[in-house]
Amino acid sequence: MKAIVPFKVVNVKSRLSTLLTPEERSELARLMLRDITSTLAAAGVDVELLTTQPFEWDGATVIVSEKELNPALNDYLLANDNPVMIVMADIPLITEKNIRDMLASPADLVICPGRGGGTNVQLIRRPDKYHVDYYGASFVDHRRIAEENGLTIEVFDSFNVSSDIDEAGDLIELYIHGKGDAARYLRSITVLDDSKGRVRVVKEESNLRAVRIPGKMTG
Amino acid sequence: MKAIVPFKVVNVKSRLSTLLTPEERSELARLMLRDITSTLAAAGVDVELLTTQPFEWDGATVIVSEKELNPALNDYLLANDNPVMIVMADIPLITEKNIRDMLASPADLVICPGRGGGTNVQLIRRPDKYHVDYYGASFVDHRRIAEENGLTIEVFDSFNVSSDIDEAGDLIELYIHGKGDAARYLRSITVLDDSKGRVRVVKEESNLRAVRIPGKMTG
Repeated sequence: MKAIVPFKVVNVKSRLSTLLTPEERSELARLMLRDITSTLAAAGVDVELLTTQPFEWDGATVIVSEKELNPALNDYLLANDNPVMIVMADIPLITEKNIRDMLASPADLVICPGRGGGTNVQLIRRPDKYHVDYYGASFVDHRRIAEENGLTIEVFDSFNVSSDIDEAGDLIELYIHGKGDAARYLRSITVLDDSKGRVRVVKEESNLRAVRIPGKMTG
Repeated sequence: MKAIVPFKVVNVKSRLSTLLTPEERSELARLMLRDITSTLAAAGVDVELLTTQPFEWDGATVIVSEKELNPALNDYLLANDNPVMIVMADIPLITEKNIRDMLASPADLVICPGRGGGTNVQLIRRPDKYHVDYYGASFVDHRRIAEENGLTIEVFDSFNVSSDIDEAGDLIELYIHGKGDAARYLRSITVLDDSKGRVRVVKEESNLRAVRIPGKMTG
């Protein structure tokens, strides 16, 4: 089995910019990708990365396409006769067991929802009878495409796989549940704050700013 | 096996008030509770409801306690020698298979995370050696309490069980993935909107308001 992981090389994870600097976002994105590709490899899956510009990654073949995500992935499906997985690069909680459980399913399409209507992993056994349509409520679109093509579907039920780290509010899942390098890095640069009802991941500096007294700063 | 489900009878699901009227919140909360208690019963679990005031519910024993959630639940654990489940009332995606899979685990504590550090279901096989501590990052607290008491732990990995419907932004999960009466009701009073990037559940009336031209309304 092989998996393709789309990865944005520049201005990565821009929606985390409310909390993290560009350097931190870049480092976190690479560590998440490392956690995911290592986990795929441990489960015996060959990893390919799909990027829009040249990039090197230890242990993976890099496929460069200047096309948008959907046409680039659909080109990839057209060129493949064998089953493939499409795995998002921002699901660092995914485990080797998750991948093995998906591989054990006999369904033509094994699809794992992301939050908010998204699709985080698809195992496509019949790439000749399927195409992808990411963005928006892609889970609904993917289910419909599979049904229209007469494919059997298994919805894979996993908190780990459904937890995509996209916005600052998502970091709490990685902070609390993560076991890999991305989680360790996140815990080294942020702290948990449960002072305002919902628990959040914050920068220590933000807390300090909140209690600083302006008049004292120049004194 | 028996399960206790804490349920707020008045001013239910107040954090959904940004989208739903009090009547709609009350109806949705009751349909979610119905879906959950029916699913527990189908899996062979006896259901008890924990409320702060008298309430009747077909198919469940109602336990009234004026205490706060944590002391009320810890009283309940103290009074029980046998294994019990604690199931939140806002996880309508939970399936009979989810419950049977949890029951099949040999761990002393089977714990299913909610989003944002919460705890949505716990199966407690040793109520004499455990106590609960909900609110905040309760998942972290529960894991610690189990470790301090030498209990074995299984973290139950489920998107269905982790999806608690607490804020308006959570309704998308019920709308897209729900199979029960709560989902059918939600779909009858709301629509999906993917016009602003992230997909959301909105009221049709809100959309109409958004395009109304004030000058025309009196004409």
